[in-house]
Order: sequence, then C-alpha cells, then structure tokens
Amino acid sequence: MFTRVAIIGLGLIGGSIGLALRRSGAASEVVGYDLGKGVSDHARRIGAIEQAYTALPDAVRGADLVVLATPVGAMHALLQDLAPALTPGTVVTDVASTKRQVLAWAEKFLPSSVAFVGGHPMAGKELSGVEAADPDLFCGRVYCLTPTAQTNPAALEMVTTMIHALGARVRFLDPAEHDKQVACISHLPFLASTALVQTVANSPAWGEMALLASSGFRDVTRLAAGNSQMYRDICLTNGEAIVQCLDDYIETLQTLRSMVAAGDRTIENVFVEAQQERLRWQASHDQAEPNCGGNGKKS
Amino acid sequence: MFTRVAIIGLGLIGGSIGLALRRSGAASEVVGYDLGKGVSDHARRIGAIEQAYTALPDAVRGADLVVLATPVGAMHALLQDLAPALTPGTVVTDVASTKRQVLAWAEKFLPSSVAFVGGHPMAGKELSGVEAADPDLFCGRVYCLTPTAQTNPAALEMVTTMIHALGARVRFLDPAEHDKQVACISHLPFLASTALVQTVANSPAWGEMALLASSGFRDVTRLAAGNSQMYRDICLTNGEAIVQCLDDYIETLQTLRSMVAAGDRTIENVFVEAQQERLRWQASHDQAEPNCGGNGKKS
Repeated sequence: MFTRVAIIGLGLIGGSIGLALRRSGAASEVVGYDLGKGVSDHARRIGAIEQAYTALPDAVRGADLVVLATPVGAMHALLQDLAPALTPGTVVTDVASTKRQVLAWAEKFLPSSVAFVGGHPMAGKELSGVEAADPDLFCGRVYCLTPTAQTNPAALEMVTTMIHALGARVRFLDPAEHDKQVACISHLPFLASTALVQTVANSPAWGEMALLASSGFRDVTRLAAGNSQMYRDICLTNGEAIVQCLDDYIETLQTLRSMVAAGDRTIENVFVEAQQERLRWQASHDQAEPNCGGNGKKS
Repeated sequence: MFTRVAIIGLGLIGGSIGLALRRSGAASEVVGYDLGKGVSDHARRIGAIEQAYTALPDAVRGADLVVLATPVGAMHALLQDLAPALTPGTVVTDVASTKRQVLAWAEKFLPSSVAFVGGHPMAGKELSGVEAADPDLFCGRVYCLTPTAQTNPAALEMVTTMIHALGARVRFLDPAEHDKQVACISHLPFLASTALVQTVANSPAWGEMALLASSGFRDVTRLAAGNSQMYRDICLTNGEAIVQCLDDYIETLQTLRSMVAAGDRTIENVFVEAQQERLRWQASHDQAEPNCGGNGKKS
C-alpha cells in the first residue's frame, strides 16, 4: 500500500498508470505533474490523479513512490531537476524505452538517500496523450524491471508491488540485455517500417503506387507513424544495440535478395520458417493475455 | 450482362468474385471449378457459383467470360490445359499477382480465337480459402487491368464491366509498370516482414525477446504469416523488379544505420518525413473506401 504516488509526465503511459493504480486501491493518494499546458488538469478530470501540481518539487515532496513517465529524451533534464526536490527514502522508477543510459543518469544525478529502479512496460497504443489513457493498458502485459547489483531490494519490491497493481507481469532483465532485446523486437521494427515508407515514397512512381497499396502495406508501415522525437531519442540512447540488429537485418535481406535474383525456388523454405515462427509467436502471445480489470471485473 | 461466367479457382478471390457477381445481377449464370476436394461444392453451397464442375473443359465450355482466380504459380499449367477447351469468342481474364509472365504464357498457349485481359485486384484478407469469401471484398478497391497493344478492345470493355459489377475501381497499367509498382508496395513489404521475423528468430535471445514483443512487432510481421508458396511464385515471376526494390530498401536501411551509428540527431527529420508520408497515405486511403453492397445496400 502506497501513501503517496507522484506521476511525472501524464501522457498515455503516465495517465494509464494513474487510472490503473487508483482503480486497484493500492495507493492512498496519486498526484501528478506535467509540463504540458492543461495536461495535468485533464488527467485529474478523468481520474488518473487526484491532485495536479504546477511545480515539480511540490508534486514529489513526501511521495513514497515517484514514477517518471516521460520519453527517454526528457530523462536527463528531469533527473537533474528532480534530485534536489526528492524526500529521503523516496523510491523513483521510470518507464523509458531504453535503460542503460537512464540508469547512468540516475546514478549520476540522484542523491544516495533515494533509490532508483529502472522499468519499462511493454504496452502501447497507436494513440498517445492522456486522452488515450486506459486503466487496462498494462493488463497481462510484460513490464520489465532492470535491477543492478546496486539496486535496493526494498525499492525493487515496492516497484514490483506497483506493477502487480497495474495487472502486469514483471520480468527482470539486466539493463544491457534489456536494451539489446528491445533493439531487436521494438526499435528495429520501427526502423524497418520507416525505411519501407521512405523507399517507396522516394520512388518516382509513388503517387501511382500509393493507389495500389493495400492492407499489407498498411500493416507493415503502421509503426512509421510513431512519435519521431521519441524514436530519435531511442536511437541516441541505444545506438550500439540498434546498429547490431540493423546489420543482422540487412544481412538477412541480402540473402533473400540473392535468392530472388537467382530464381531460387528454395526461398519458399525461408518463407515457411518465418511463417511458422510468426504463427507460433502469435499463438503464445494471444495465450498470454488474460482478462483484467479492477477487483477482477473488466472495466 | 454476361450469359455465363466460369470461375476457375474458388479460393478467397474466386469465391468473392462469384458472390459479388451473383449479387450484382450482372451474370445470368456463374459456374466454377476447383482442383481442391470439396471446394467447388462449398462454393456452390454459399452461393458463390450456381453450378460446380469436376472437369475443367465442362466448366469453361460456352462461357463468355472465364476468370482464372488461381495463384500465379498455377497459371502456366492452367493456361495450357485450358487452351483446347475454350469456345471461340470467350474472353479470359486472370487475377494473378504478377502480370508480365502471365501475359507471356497467355500469348503462348491461348488460341487466337479467344481474348485475354490481365487483371489484378488489390484486395485481400489475412484469411484465405472459399470459407473467407466475401461479396464486399472488392468494394471501393483498385482493380488493375494491364492491356497491351494486342488487347481486344471489346474484351477489355467486358472485363471492365465485370469489375464495376464487383464494386471496384479500374486502373489501367502497363504490365511491366504494374509489376514494378506491386514489387514495391506489395512484394517488398512481405519480404521486409519475413526478414524481420527471420532476423529476430535467429537471435540466441529470441525465446526471451518473444515475451517482450508487442503490438509494433505484431503489425510489422503480420505479412510474414502469408502464403509461402504464393510468395515463392511471385518472386519467381517478378524477380527483376523485386531485386530493384530490395536494393533501394537496403540502401535506405544502410543510411539509417550510419545515422544511428553516428548519433546523428537529424535522423528525426527522416522519421518526420516518413511519418508524414504514412499519415498522408492513410488519410487518402481511408477516403477512397466508399460504401458498397448489392443494389446500393450494405450486405
């Protein structure tokens, strides 16, 4: 049970954490802060927080848990600003997409009187902003925590309690391992999708081709409509792992290219293998999504 | 008005053509043939055809329009088998994904007493087979026709009439231009999706990563679950155009890779451009989908 949870950054993720935490009854008070004009008032109106603060120090003062729900690009400045305002004993956690860099900043800026636990919920939506906040967003989803040898065990337990209150499943990962894995299953798909749009849009026939593009094109390119600034910051903080995945991807494409150029019928075997992997993944993914909702009922 | 339309191949596309044509009232009789056991009977039961034939010559005899609704890989043998059975004056059209090769086979095998018009409806579903047939499948969709200087104008008009009866919009394209365009907006997305699954599935950490993969991964890799044999035949019949698109795609990825490796913040501009293109395409694509349905009502 939390006395006071402060959520910094009230977008899709921060707003959804507020809604889910308040529904769960795990926190006596959930308060929030957001730089955006009117955002924290909106969050209060939809019930994601009980109180909106206009100054960061006021929001985090006396909180037992502070959740930093901003994109990774905002973390450097936020951790610096936050440091002098935190009450000793506060546990701080974040939701940013990459972890090694955030942990280094937390180590550098936060006082030793507060404990930091890196986190990353594997949940999202096409929509962003507090308007899209949803108490079921984390329901049955994996929520990564990246403790290190320095992580305070009590703080880790506290963040784990929060994650369970959200209805999510905790997964512990080494920060570097986390960054490598999301580079492949999250950052690479975005870059593959973006590069596909770029490739076709740079073709002189794009105006014509656009009329022929159908559901397959739509699905593969959906990620390219994602938040450009967030993905820039992901690239800036996870470059090494992303480059490795991109190299593997380019090599795979070059192999396929050679097979197509040679008219190699055995390319079908490659397609079958990928198809089977994709179907297996989808089946296990579907199975892993349980029902959710406050107090056992679907809201 | 058609007297007798024969549909050869009663999968998703053939079955849907039958349902839509019969609903439109544009054909006095729609008959069909399929190699698969029980398929044509199933098509008859759901009303996609009125009569099912067990021999190809019986199905096409006396038809004014024959629609070849098989994957491109089956076209070579089908056109050979079909040639001696066709009644002079019959118009033949196909729905295969690539056109240059099919036109060459039609030219080679069909007698001069019948007219051939290459076609390709830009419509599909994740599901396949006659069970997934849907009279609204072509509703508002682009349906490519690839006439050449040799194409009989009356035959072209007849196939155009059929397409309008399906509720689709005709788009005329040079066969080679068609093949280039679909290589980029249809075949490349499949290969990009398949290569992504392959790349991550070949990683030693795939078992772990699979647990973190979420909606973004799902969307980008959906196409990889497509029909392997069909895509093999697409690669075999459109290799040149596909290789060109793959080369452009790999080059785009290499540029992104260099920017990531260099920590180049201007990568955001690339992301913004792709995002804007994607949003523009989606907006115009959504706008282009009108209501449909037999006699003006949505079925």
